[in-house]
Amino acid sequence: MLESIIIEKEKARMRSPILIEGLPGIGMVGKLAADHIVKELKGTMVAQLYSPHFPHQVLMQKNGLMKMLKYKFYLIRGKKNDLLVLVGDVQAMTSEAQYEVAGKVLDYAQRKGCKLIFTLGGYGIGKTIGGSRVFGSATDKELIPLYSKHGVIFGESRGSIIGAAGLLLGMGRIRGMKGVCLMGETHGAYVDAKAAEEVLKVLSKILGIKINLEKLSERARDGERFMKKMEKEAEKQREALTKTKGETLSYIR
Amino acid sequence: MLESIIIEKEKARMRSPILIEGLPGIGMVGKLAADHIVKELKGTMVAQLYSPHFPHQVLMQKNGLMKMLKYKFYLIRGKKNDLLVLVGDVQAMTSEAQYEVAGKVLDYAQRKGCKLIFTLGGYGIGKTIGGSRVFGSATDKELIPLYSKHGVIFGESRGSIIGAAGLLLGMGRIRGMKGVCLMGETHGAYVDAKAAEEVLKVLSKILGIKINLEKLSERARDGERFMKKMEKEAEKQREALTKTKGETLSYIR
Amino acid sequence: MLESIIIEKEKARMRSPILIEGLPGIGMVGKLAADHIVKELKGTMVAQLYSPHFPHQVLMQKNGLMKMLKYKFYLIRGKKNDLLVLVGDVQAMTSEAQYEVAGKVLDYAQRKGCKLIFTLGGYGIGKTIGGSRVFGSATDKELIPLYSKHGVIFGESRGSIIGAAGLLLGMGRIRGMKGVCLMGETHGAYVDAKAAEEVLKVLSKILGIKINLEKLSERARDGERFMKKMEKEAEKQREALTKTKGETLSYIR
Amino acid sequence: MLESIIIEKEKARMRSPILIEGLPGIGMVGKLAADHIVKELKGTMVAQLYSPHFPHQVLMQKNGLMKMLKYKFYLIRGKKNDLLVLVGDVQAMTSEAQYEVAGKVLDYAQRKGCKLIFTLGGYGIGKTIGGSRVFGSATDKELIPLYSKHGVIFGESRGSIIGAAGLLLGMGRIRGMKGVCLMGETHGAYVDAKAAEEVLKVLSKILGIKINLEKLSERARDGERFMKKMEKEAEKQREALTKTKGETLSYIR
Repeated sequence: MLESIIIEKEKARMRSPILIEGLPGIGMVGKLAADHIVKELKGTMVAQLYSPHFPHQVLMQKNGLMKMLKYKFYLIRGKKNDLLVLVGDVQAMTSEAQYEVAGKVLDYAQRKGCKLIFTLGGYGIGKTIGGSRVFGSATDKELIPLYSKHGVIFGESRGSIIGAAGLLLGMGRIRGMKGVCLMGETHGAYVDAKAAEEVLKVLSKILGIKINLEKLSERARDGERFMKKMEKEAEKQREALTKTKGETLSYIR
Repeated sequence: MLESIIIEKEKARMRSPILIEGLPGIGMVGKLAADHIVKELKGTMVAQLYSPHFPHQVLMQKNGLMKMLKYKFYLIRGKKNDLLVLVGDVQAMTSEAQYEVAGKVLDYAQRKGCKLIFTLGGYGIGKTIGGSRVFGSATDKELIPLYSKHGVIFGESRGSIIGAAGLLLGMGRIRGMKGVCLMGETHGAYVDAKAAEEVLKVLSKILGIKINLEKLSERARDGERFMKKMEKEAEKQREALTKTKGETLSYIR
Repeated sequence: MLESIIIEKEKARMRSPILIEGLPGIGMVGKLAADHIVKELKGTMVAQLYSPHFPHQVLMQKNGLMKMLKYKFYLIRGKKNDLLVLVGDVQAMTSEAQYEVAGKVLDYAQRKGCKLIFTLGGYGIGKTIGGSRVFGSATDKELIPLYSKHGVIFGESRGSIIGAAGLLLGMGRIRGMKGVCLMGETHGAYVDAKAAEEVLKVLSKILGIKINLEKLSERARDGERFMKKMEKEAEKQREALTKTKGETLSYIR
Repeated sequence: MLESIIIEKEKARMRSPILIEGLPGIGMVGKLAADHIVKELKGTMVAQLYSPHFPHQVLMQKNGLMKMLKYKFYLIRGKKNDLLVLVGDVQAMTSEAQYEVAGKVLDYAQRKGCKLIFTLGGYGIGKTIGGSRVFGSATDKELIPLYSKHGVIFGESRGSIIGAAGLLLGMGRIRGMKGVCLMGETHGAYVDAKAAEEVLKVLSKILGIKINLEKLSERARDGERFMKKMEKEAEKQREALTKTKGETLSYIR
C-alpha cells in the first residue's frame, strides 16, 4: 500500500452532501462531536479509508477480532442536504501524509457531490473558562454573516489550525469547495465534552437539524476510559518490543 | 530501487498455500518459531524480498561473502495445504515502509493462491510467568471457535499488534484473506524460546503436522549469540563512521 | 496532494522575465527585500504554489478567513525584462522537499521564458558590523564582472547557501539558466532590514530600476511584530494539541 | 527533482568498464583512494549524478562560483578494461535514499557494460595499529581466491558494510554483477591516508596497473584542511539560519 485507499461499502447516491469532519485533536472536541452525530442520527457507514500514513499496527478487540486503524464515512439522510460525516481513530503523522490523506478524502467527497465542508475542533486557550464560545474560520467571506447569526465568532481566534480540520478546508477551496472550521473554546489539556456540546449546538442551528445532546458527556467518559485502557496495553507492547534484547539486533540500523 | 522487489528463485506451483509469518519482534518469539519450522520441515527457499526500507548495509560473513538484508519465503509441501513461510533479518522501519513491504508480501502470497495467514509473535506482559498461554486475534469471527479448541485464547490480549504480524492480517483482510495472529505470552525483555515452543505446539495442532521441538532452545541460544556478535561488530563500524573527522564534512547537512 | 502544484491566477505573457526569489531565511534578508519589491513596484499576483512539503496547517486571519501556507509569484512589468518575483510564508522542511519545490518553481519560470535568476538572502557572520557589504555567488563566470561593477563582492563568502536561494540556482544551471545569489552581510541572530536595504540597492543598480527604500524598515518592524504574534498563537494551539490527554491515544504510535 | 538524475557529459563508449567506488565514509579511506586514482591516472569526467537525497545546499567557491553537491563518474582508459571511477561530495542520508541513488548508479554502469565492481572503504577497529591489512568481502565465492593472492584478507572482517560501498555490491549482485569491497584497516576516528595507500596498493596489483602514491598523503592533508574550512563556514550559515528570530516563524511547524 503506497497511497491511502478508500473502499466504498455502499455505492450510495447522495443529495448535495455536506462533509462534516471530526477527527482526534485538541480536547478531542471534534472527534466527540462527530462521533455523537453519527450515533444520534444513526449514520450508515458508506466508506472506509486506510492509509500507509497511519501507525503500522492493528488493534485487538475484546471479541477476539482485530481491526485496522482507519477513517470512516457515515451517511445521514437530510431534507435538502445529506450529511457525510468523517470520523476516525487517528490523524496522519507528517505534513506530507496529512496532505495526501486530505486529498483522498476530498476526492471522495467531491465525487459524491459535496460542495460545503464543516470541520470540527477545539481552540485551546490554556485555561478553564465558564463561557461557551465557538470560534469560526471560513474559506469565503460570504459565509461569515450566514454563520455569525447562529453564534459563531469569526476573527477572534488567531494562529493556525493544525491537521485535517484546516487542510480539508484550505485544500478544498483550491477545488472550489467552501466551508468553515468550527472550534469550541477549550482548555486544551483534557478531553472536553462541554466544548463539543457547544459546537454541536451551533452546528445543529446552522444545519437546521435536531441533535439530542443528553448522552454526550456519558459517551465522552466511556470513550476516554476505553482509550486509556487501550493505550496502556499498546504502550506495554511497544515497551516489550523495545526491551527485547534481540530487537536492537533485528532492527539493525 | 524505489519499491520492495520480490525475486522468485523457483516458480513453484503451490497447493492452497497457508502463509506463515515470523519476523523479528517482541521476545523474538515469531522469528524463532518460523525459523524453526523452516529448518525442521526442510523448507525450500522459493523467493526473496529486498526493500529500500531495510537498513542501507550488507552483512559480512565468515566465508568472505556479503549478504543483503532480506525476507525469504520457504515452501513446505503439505497434504492439503502447502506452507509458505516468511522469515527475515529485519522489519521495515517506518509506518509507510511497513505498509509498503506488507503489500508486496501479500501480492506474492495472493498470486500463489494463499487465502489463509498465520502470523507468529510475542505478547509482552512485563513479568515472568510459569504459564504457557498462546493468545490469538483473528480477522474473522468464524475462525475463533476453530482455533480456540486447540488452545488459542481469544479476547484476552488487548492493545495493538505492531508491525508485520498485525498489518499482514489487517491488510490481507481488505483483499479477502483471513487469518490469525498467534502470540506467545512472554516477558518481553529477553529472547524467549519457551514462548516460541508454545506457539509452535498450538500451530502444529491447528495445521495437523508434527514439528520436532528438541533443538529449538539450542537454536535460540546459538542465534542469540551470533546476533549479539554481529551487532557488536556492526556497532563498531557505525561508531567509526561517526567518529571519522571527515564525516561531519562529507555528510554536510 | 502528492506533489507541489502551481495554480496560475493570470495566464500572463511575460517578456524575458527575470526570476527574483526572496523566501524566509538568514536574517529574513531575502524575504524582506522581495516583499518590498512587490509592494513598491506594485506587482500583480500571477501564480500560487501549494506544497505537501509545507506545514500541515492553515493560518487564521483577523477578517475571519483562513489561508493556506504558500509561495506567490508576482509579475512586475519592465522595459526590457519583466520581473517575476517569488515570495512566500515558509521554506520546505527536508532536503527532498526543497529539491521538489525548487523543481516546480523552475518548471513554471522556464515555461514563462525565464533565463536569469537572482536569489536574495543573508550571509551570517555572527557579529554586528558597521559595513554594508553584499556578497555574490554566481552560476557562471561571465556574470561576475557584470555584477562586480555594481558592488557585488564575489569569492569572499564561503561555505554553503542553504535552501531555495542556493538550489534554484544550482538546479537552474542544469537546465541552462544562469544567475547569482545576492547575500547581505548580517549578524544572523535578528531580522535585518539594513542588510535587505543593501541588497536592494545593489539589485536596483543591476536591473536599472528605482526602488523607494523609505518604508523598508517600517515594514520590517511591522512584519516582525505580526509574525511574533502569529507564532505565539500557533504555539498555543500546538501545545493544546500535545497536552490533550486523548492525544497520545489518538496519535497511537 | 523527485529522483536522482545522471547527466552524461560525454557519451563515451567503454570497453568492459570496471566500476570503482570511493565516497566519503569511515576514515575517508575510500574517498581518498578514488580521488587519488582519478588525479594520478588523469580520468575524464563523463557523467554527474544529482540527487534530491543530497543536502539542500550549494557550495560557494573561492572563484565566486557555486557548485551543487554531486557524484562524478570519471573514465580512465585501460588495456583490457576501462575504469569507471565514482567519486563524490556526500552520501545520501537515509536508507531509502541510499537504495535509490545506488540503483541509479548501477543503471548507468550497467548501461555502459560494467560487470565488475570494486568499492573502497575503511574498516574501523577503534585503535591504532602498525599493520596494513586490507580486508575484503565479495559477492561471489569464485572471486575470493583471485584477490586473496594479491593480499586481500577475506572472512576476518565482520559486521556490516554501511552505505554505498555495501549496497552497490549487494544490489549489483541482484542484477548479475560481481564485485568486492576492499576495506583498509583504520582507527576510524581520523582521516587515514595510510589505509588509503594500502587499499590502492592492493587494487593496483589486482588491476595490473601502476598508481604513483607519492602525493597521496599530501593531498589527504590538503583535502582535510580544505574540508574543515568549508565545514566551519557552512556551520556558521546553519547557525545564522537557526538564530534568526524570524526563523521559528517562517519555518512554522
